[in-house]
Amino acid sequence: MSPKITTELLKQLRQVMKSPKYVQEPVQAYIVPSGDAHQSEYIAPCDCRRAFISGFDGSAGTAIITEQHAAMWTDGRYFLQAANQMDNNWTLMKMGLKDTPTQEDWLVSVLPEGSKVGVDPFIIPADQWKRMSKVLRSAGHDLVPIKENLIDTIWTDCPQRPCKPLITLDLNYTGVSWRDKIVALRSKMAERKVLWFVVTALDEVAWLFNLRGSDVEYNPVFFAYAVIGMNTIRLFIDGDRMTDPAVREHLQLDSTLEPEFKIQVMPYGSILTELQAVGASLSPKEKVWLSDKASYALTEAVPKAYQYLTPYTPICIAKAVKNASETEGMRRAHVKDAVALCELFNWLEKEVPKGTVTEITAADKAEEFRSQQKDFVELSFATISSTGPNGAIIHYKPVPETNRTLSVNEIYLLDSGAQYKDGTTDVTRTMHFGTPSAYEKECFTYVLKGHIAVSAAIFPNGTKGHLLDSFARSALWDCGLDYLHGTGHGVGSFLNVHEGPCGISYKTFADEPLEAGMIVSDEPGYYEDGSFGIRIENVVLVIPAETKYNFKNRGSLTFEPLTLVPIQTKMIDVSLLTQKELNWVNDYHQKCREVIGAELERQGRLEALQWLIRETEPLIRVLIYFFSVCFSWVVSVFISAGKRKKKKRKGKQVSVRFRFSFCMCHPQK
Amino acid sequence: MSPKITTELLKQLRQVMKSPKYVQEPVQAYIVPSGDAHQSEYIAPCDCRRAFISGFDGSAGTAIITEQHAAMWTDGRYFLQAANQMDNNWTLMKMGLKDTPTQEDWLVSVLPEGSKVGVDPFIIPADQWKRMSKVLRSAGHDLVPIKENLIDTIWTDCPQRPCKPLITLDLNYTGVSWRDKIVALRSKMAERKVLWFVVTALDEVAWLFNLRGSDVEYNPVFFAYAVIGMNTIRLFIDGDRMTDPAVREHLQLDSTLEPEFKIQVMPYGSILTELQAVGASLSPKEKVWLSDKASYALTEAVPKAYQYLTPYTPICIAKAVKNASETEGMRRAHVKDAVALCELFNWLEKEVPKGTVTEITAADKAEEFRSQQKDFVELSFATISSTGPNGAIIHYKPVPETNRTLSVNEIYLLDSGAQYKDGTTDVTRTMHFGTPSAYEKECFTYVLKGHIAVSAAIFPNGTKGHLLDSFARSALWDCGLDYLHGTGHGVGSFLNVHEGPCGISYKTFADEPLEAGMIVSDEPGYYEDGSFGIRIENVVLVIPAETKYNFKNRGSLTFEPLTLVPIQTKMIDVSLLTQKELNWVNDYHQKCREVIGAELERQGRLEALQWLIRETEPLIRVLIYFFSVCFSWVVSVFISAGKRKKKKRKGKQVSVRFRFSFCMCHPQK
Repeated sequence: MSPKITTELLKQLRQVMKSPKYVQEPVQAYIVPSGDAHQSEYIAPCDCRRAFISGFDGSAGTAIITEQHAAMWTDGRYFLQAANQMDNNWTLMKMGLKDTPTQEDWLVSVLPEGSKVGVDPFIIPADQWKRMSKVLRSAGHDLVPIKENLIDTIWTDCPQRPCKPLITLDLNYTGVSWRDKIVALRSKMAERKVLWFVVTALDEVAWLFNLRGSDVEYNPVFFAYAVIGMNTIRLFIDGDRMTDPAVREHLQLDSTLEPEFKIQVMPYGSILTELQAVGASLSPKEKVWLSDKASYALTEAVPKAYQYLTPYTPICIAKAVKNASETEGMRRAHVKDAVALCELFNWLEKEVPKGTVTEITAADKAEEFRSQQKDFVELSFATISSTGPNGAIIHYKPVPETNRTLSVNEIYLLDSGAQYKDGTTDVTRTMHFGTPSAYEKECFTYVLKGHIAVSAAIFPNGTKGHLLDSFARSALWDCGLDYLHGTGHGVGSFLNVHEGPCGISYKTFADEPLEAGMIVSDEPGYYEDGSFGIRIENVVLVIPAETKYNFKNRGSLTFEPLTLVPIQTKMIDVSLLTQKELNWVNDYHQKCREVIGAELERQGRLEALQWLIRETEPLIRVLIYFFSVCFSWVVSVFISAGKRKKKKRKGKQVSVRFRFSFCMCHPQK
Repeated sequence: MSPKITTELLKQLRQVMKSPKYVQEPVQAYIVPSGDAHQSEYIAPCDCRRAFISGFDGSAGTAIITEQHAAMWTDGRYFLQAANQMDNNWTLMKMGLKDTPTQEDWLVSVLPEGSKVGVDPFIIPADQWKRMSKVLRSAGHDLVPIKENLIDTIWTDCPQRPCKPLITLDLNYTGVSWRDKIVALRSKMAERKVLWFVVTALDEVAWLFNLRGSDVEYNPVFFAYAVIGMNTIRLFIDGDRMTDPAVREHLQLDSTLEPEFKIQVMPYGSILTELQAVGASLSPKEKVWLSDKASYALTEAVPKAYQYLTPYTPICIAKAVKNASETEGMRRAHVKDAVALCELFNWLEKEVPKGTVTEITAADKAEEFRSQQKDFVELSFATISSTGPNGAIIHYKPVPETNRTLSVNEIYLLDSGAQYKDGTTDVTRTMHFGTPSAYEKECFTYVLKGHIAVSAAIFPNGTKGHLLDSFARSALWDCGLDYLHGTGHGVGSFLNVHEGPCGISYKTFADEPLEAGMIVSDEPGYYEDGSFGIRIENVVLVIPAETKYNFKNRGSLTFEPLTLVPIQTKMIDVSLLTQKELNWVNDYHQKCREVIGAELERQGRLEALQWLIRETEPLIRVLIYFFSVCFSWVVSVFISAGKRKKKKRKGKQVSVRFRFSFCMCHPQK
């Protein structure tokens, strides 16, 4: 992949940074954050401003352009990708490494005295504004909001903002009606004594109204805001979407409703003025609740004294704990997803040796198999289909320039998922279609041990996910290996594949405690730059655990894998597994065989079924097995030696040997 | 222990809260934090205001008194103690439990509209002021500084502030002269472009000047502040302490020095006005560096634009990484400490069955043995000597009312340590002088597994201690057990037994990454209210680790125990240990035997040496050993049966059996 040449663009941007047409006073630096006005992680093409200016199109990164420099901050998932996509105008700032300066510190170190730093106030979250603004101010600089987005002024062929039709979800999928969600929200508002709640995150709007859209690729959301009062509901949304009879019916727009459930539909662009009007109408002690990650523009629309900001909104927290209908939907989605992957891996096993499969065709084939499943909507993120050295680019997406042919000599990593109407999936499997090296197996097995350590962890109610992160790394650490990304993220229910407020990460973020019903991913990995990448990812459901002493009735939790796709046993060095880990793999494969086997059979996919059965054969310890057989043979020789005169039948020996080898292989059974 | 009756005191306090003599306007709430003007954890008697008003004298806790309520926030270590020491006027707020409100939220929920909340600005840290003030303001209340401490106004017999002689430490102990420390500090100041640095923590003043004091029990510190400029050094300290010739010589007060190393000695009480003068003299861009935990009063003395606040000061970070002289000192101190404890445990083993030893006499005996060691100064904290149910009170200190006699029927927990001129110790051992129950052994073994998991952990350079906390809990969690305190804290070098900026805790605090040379404690526990307490604590040194792949030259770390006191094997259920854990215990005991044995012998403490040798016998797996003996016996019977005719000697069988049992006991050897 060749980097984007940005010399001319940066020149233009530096001109508008000084142009009185766009800025009151020249700005010496301009910040281009990753997100959109809703602080989304995945964004519509019209919002990909950071990618436009830099060439780097990973899902996380912030660009800062000064008169002399252009710098890009991104995290470990994207170090290689960003380095490949950006030209020499750019400096890569590797977040998470000890010596990398923060954006604020870097600005202070490079800016001339008394500089102005510009940013679009709709794109920067309020908490980030506050942090940056404070540091800059204390160094004698100023962070200033620039109304017109400066990237947009130089982006001549910027695409239109999408406005696609909506999907309504009934109770079978959501478990709770939008009216009941509003009631629950208002009760949380009453608890905190706030009068208004502003819904700014797109997935929160979608979840609240039991609607889905397709404005942003992979994320079934639509551009909208909502402002919920104790007696009013305002939905800010554009286009003809509200003329769809199904949507009108779903939202009861034409019914006679109690006034507090009557939805007022307003233009998307009117949110700022409407919110300013709300702000202006407040009396002392009346509060407006916003996420502290809402945009600086919307947050500032409410006078400071009336703001009630929290890191997570009550919708975010409610959405994370899946109800029975959502959990069942997620289970169904994962069964269908596993069927598709069994088909894929069976196909790859036959096709890869022919040398005709590339990363792109493999990804396409995965999508093809998924799209054959009921209620398939779209993929849940860009498929990471990577072989050999490409596997080490953590969030790699194959493009023609980098597309590699799968072979029997290289590791293949597939991280993919889909949106089904009943749930969202996200699964990574790492396969070898030839003979993996001892080192590759060793690394794979450490990653697997980490995966199992999290998946099988038991922990008290109230534990935050970040406390489990090191379990995933311990086996790698013991040998001096590690991976530069978190271990897990929340997963939406037919919603964003990444969602808060829970996760499993070494980064100390304000995650909410794990609760039964939450769904997260468990995805440790290991990456050898220039050689290969390994990741094993399941989506897991938080469930109550049974323990001997049950934390004095505080209760305990563990995980149940929803993903049921075999983990390639060929890649496992069994001698590195403990008996408990070996049992976990065998139990997991047994469940895959039962649940996915039944569905493959029902769908008549018999070849994939054969593949599944082969791939889920129980593991045994070769060495112990070997010794146990030898040992029992020695014993049987002595038995026969001692009892030869009694002329016993040979059958007796066989039965002794079998019983004995069974004991040695399953000491914990 | 009977609670302190506080009805009259609270009445008086509520009166002064409204008295125009002390407050400009009446305050509806008054906050009594734990610390002193230096935000010390351990404080002088004259600063024990929270204990005076409430009766609760644990090391951590904040009292808030309103017109109607009196509430006390403390953490899991002190729930039982606080409940026992406070009368019914007080509500205990258990920090760390899910439903416990923060102090701010609680204030908002109980205060009448537009209330004023008072606090001594010298006692409240600036960061806490900021947080509380913000929440209170947003709820329509005000946090106001009250110059005169209101507790002091009703505390008629308040003790004098101590002012004891100083100890000077030479290079053999400190490794670095105070001049070189000042040079290093100024280079850090230059790096951050600050002109002034204010030293507010007592241990930081002591460390910087290589001086020690005894103003605060257990903490070898003295009341002082320092303000370091690029060319000036000001030390704020009271009394005749600067007339001591040794101190004058050490600080070179009477020598002709380069002006930038000339120390100006000023009265302790003049810090505020001097700092205000510094603040007033600053030009734009000139900064004053303070800890964000410095008092609100001192922080506010510097105009906001000139403040440079960080969670940890450069002194705090430099102090945490011990140099070779300090590490060697710590090793020596721990050898002496172990000698004292071997003597103690040997003595207890003989005396406890007689029924003559109480928690207090045991603690006294421990102090007696320690005081016999070279360079002993004092204890490093109040000895926690607790048996039976008292052991469940995590930071219990025996007093006559609660004093229990040690017996052969109850678990005994001793958490103790000392200050030696060459180092600080802190060790916990849990013993049974009779026969522990299976349940007690089970719990002890889980705690031991956690202790080993941390002590033997290998992790990459740059890892923060809080990421290791769950390792200590995993074995307990698996069975539904846990403990409500962190796993480890930084330990000073002949300084405070608790120090930042590193630690091992589930609480997400901004700890600095662990570095080779840092010293922390490793102390998981388990507490059964009303029955027993278990804790196993070593002080451990962070050292480089050798790993197979060494994190691509990022390097890796692990711990080396400095504490070398046997862990009672009688309490261990060997069947619950993995082979790796068993080897750890045996290797640890081997080292105790070698290092402490040699010192016991050198000191002629031969009875304690015998005890040490007995207590450090290697563990073996009884069950496996038993089976292996049986098995080899069976094999030998067959051998003899098969070969009886050849009339071999019996010696052959014996050698087979021994070789076999060795293999089974040491499969990893």
